[in-house]
Amino acid sequence: MEVTNRYITIKTQVDGEPKESDFELKTSALSLSLDPSSNDIIVKNLYVSIDPYQLNRMKSQSSSQKAIGFAAAITPGEDIDAYGVAKVVASGNPEFEKDDLVVGLITWGEYSLLKGGKYMLRKFDPMGFPLGLTAYGGFFEVCKPKKGEKVFVSAASGSVGNLVGQYAKLFGCYVVGCAGSKEKVALLKEKLGFDDAFNYKEEPDLKAALQRYFPDGIDIYFDNVGFEMLEAAVVNMNTFGRVAVCGVISEYIDATKRAAPNMLDVVYKRIKIQGFLAADQMNVFPDFLSTTTDHLRTGKLHAVEDISDGVESFPSAFIGLFRGHNTGKKMVKVADE
Amino acid sequence: MEVTNRYITIKTQVDGEPKESDFELKTSALSLSLDPSSNDIIVKNLYVSIDPYQLNRMKSQSSSQKAIGFAAAITPGEDIDAYGVAKVVASGNPEFEKDDLVVGLITWGEYSLLKGGKYMLRKFDPMGFPLGLTAYGGFFEVCKPKKGEKVFVSAASGSVGNLVGQYAKLFGCYVVGCAGSKEKVALLKEKLGFDDAFNYKEEPDLKAALQRYFPDGIDIYFDNVGFEMLEAAVVNMNTFGRVAVCGVISEYIDATKRAAPNMLDVVYKRIKIQGFLAADQMNVFPDFLSTTTDHLRTGKLHAVEDISDGVESFPSAFIGLFRGHNTGKKMVKVADE
Ligand SMILES: NC(=O)c1ccc[n+]([C@@H]2O[C@H](COP(=O)([O-])OP(=O)(O)OC[C@H]3O[C@@H](n4cnc5c(N)ncnc54)[C@H](OP(=O)(O)O)[C@@H]3O)[C@@H](O)[C@H]2O)c1
Ligand SMILES: NC(=O)c1ccc[n+]([C@@H]2O[C@H](COP(=O)([O-])OP(=O)(O)OC[C@H]3O[C@@H](n4cnc5c(N)ncnc54)[C@H](OP(=O)(O)O)[C@@H]3O)[C@@H](O)[C@H]2O)c1
Repeated sequence: MEVTNRYITIKTQVDGEPKESDFELKTSALSLSLDPSSNDIIVKNLYVSIDPYQLNRMKSQSSSQKAIGFAAAITPGEDIDAYGVAKVVASGNPEFEKDDLVVGLITWGEYSLLKGGKYMLRKFDPMGFPLGLTAYGGFFEVCKPKKGEKVFVSAASGSVGNLVGQYAKLFGCYVVGCAGSKEKVALLKEKLGFDDAFNYKEEPDLKAALQRYFPDGIDIYFDNVGFEMLEAAVVNMNTFGRVAVCGVISEYIDATKRAAPNMLDVVYKRIKIQGFLAADQMNVFPDFLSTTTDHLRTGKLHAVEDISDGVESFPSAFIGLFRGHNTGKKMVKVADE
Repeated sequence: MEVTNRYITIKTQVDGEPKESDFELKTSALSLSLDPSSNDIIVKNLYVSIDPYQLNRMKSQSSSQKAIGFAAAITPGEDIDAYGVAKVVASGNPEFEKDDLVVGLITWGEYSLLKGGKYMLRKFDPMGFPLGLTAYGGFFEVCKPKKGEKVFVSAASGSVGNLVGQYAKLFGCYVVGCAGSKEKVALLKEKLGFDDAFNYKEEPDLKAALQRYFPDGIDIYFDNVGFEMLEAAVVNMNTFGRVAVCGVISEYIDATKRAAPNMLDVVYKRIKIQGFLAADQMNVFPDFLSTTTDHLRTGKLHAVEDISDGVESFPSAFIGLFRGHNTGKKMVKVADE
């Protein structure tokens, strides 16, 4: 048996802000008969996560591509792998059977051919889906918050940011977020329980804005954005302040934008600036899971999702991340179960 | 009785690289008769420590001046306080007697009039002089080294840097330092036991230089310098690398120089960049003292000092820090006991 697979690739390496013309929808025939000893698996993709860091993998040169396996360069014309949920349609691996629901690295396409047993895939467990671990691990493990501390979150209505703010509030911190529209600001304040929020696009002077929102200084800055926001946060930081660098989306699209935080502040205020990856936070996974499921069950924590439909929507869904089009976790729904 | 006190002040705030004409030698008469209940003390200065951070106190505006008391602005025309060793010549404080040797905040002058009991002064204890605590605390507490790790130290022949390198070697790390002359490089390699060293002034491309000296990457960077050196170190850092930001001397003299380390590296390699002050390291003081005295006694640790003579030499001693004139701990010897 054979299916037609429609999938997205990049036409060339992408070095600036991504645009529709960087992407291409391709079609190929995919045979579903696998050699039973091949270890290959074919899955039908259901939901695919849309993540800003993929842009760094699309660049012609990025030091991060060398740093860690999953950040390896994406090659024009080839599959774009991404985290998602899928259903097994053919399996050459005895551990997986047809119709199994799985999570792991699949592709920006309708089907994924995962070859040779080196794929990262496991059986789907509705409780084991690690969305939110970045926010949880980054906030608790890297920022090491104390109750009452003042927390600033950027890209606060985004997938990671909204959860950081919610976890921080539930933990007992004072939380201010910034986001790129008045609707997002309203969501943060009215629905997600942030103490305050502002639209950074309306602030000509970010340092002054943060001074207004944090007259007593910032203890923790959860950085999703980098560049000027990071610089402005460091200026407003209290002694022994902590910056968790989760990502620097404003720098992804423009290599000339580089945060240059005042190192005199870093020394005199003994600030810690620390990068982290969700992948390193597995030790808090059990905590994360129990806290998160409890809060979701009692309605104290809100899941904010932003879902596009169909394989054609991958490019616009992805591009939209860099234009602030999404609110909450961006995903593409490729097919119904 | 009265003495003539010669002392150094700044003429105006100093915003760029300091030069001789920024300083002035003044003379004043100082009465040695103190009201016995005044708590004032007059000391004769013997040795005064010369420190780069003082430049930040001489600036018209520096965020660090607000961050912490001892970094408060220095006012033109007034005494410049600095750490040193002195001898009490008159005391209105029953805790101190004439001829007591003391350490603490004295001044860039022949005598210091320390007023109203608010001075930071204590009896001199040859074992209690905390030179080296910056290096020890910064290296062990902030960098948290493991044996065999690769350590890079900048301004490595300086007061803090040379000790960091020596402590790191004695602890069992691989250590490379950089310094500004071939004589300094020779000192590091031949006398102080560094595994390697290089003259950064002869390296047109610091990133490439560090890649040559650290083909397997840097685990710990002890930063005394900032700007390009910090950027180059971050590029060459290993995963979970640590940067202790002790100081950024190259940024002190030029506010337009700002380190903009690649935050993508910081995230993907989970780098920690942390500022610290020696003043926070008092918890390791006992360790520091016993390790240091042991190593000094057995000749494994070398004290490197660079001493200028006389009150007139304060300006050139200080200016020399920013020109690399000193090797090891810079001090001015104002008088013999
Ligand atoms: N360390 C890790 O393990 C890890 C894991 C996941 C994600 N991340 C990082 O975390 C950050 C957020 O990721 P996410 O998946 O949660 O994405 P997201 O926040 O859901 O989407 C990106 C959001 O960033 C904001 N943004 C885009 N360009 C911006 C700019 N130039 N300046 C300021 N804000 C901008 C937009 O919202 P506005 O409307 O507010 O502008 C946009 O909605 C990214 O930097 C990502 O790389 C790190
Ligand atoms: N955090 C703390 O508690 C603390 C305490 C003490 C000192 N510090 C900091 O530690 C650093 C070293 O202080 P120190 O007292 O030990 O001084 P030092 O290293 O003995 O003297 C300064 C040395 O820095 C080097 N240098 C000067 N300008 C430079 C530039 N533009 N680029 C590169 N190197 C330059 C020079 O050596 P070369 O010949 O190698 O250029 C000079 O000899 C300073 O940044 C200082 O502020 C921090």
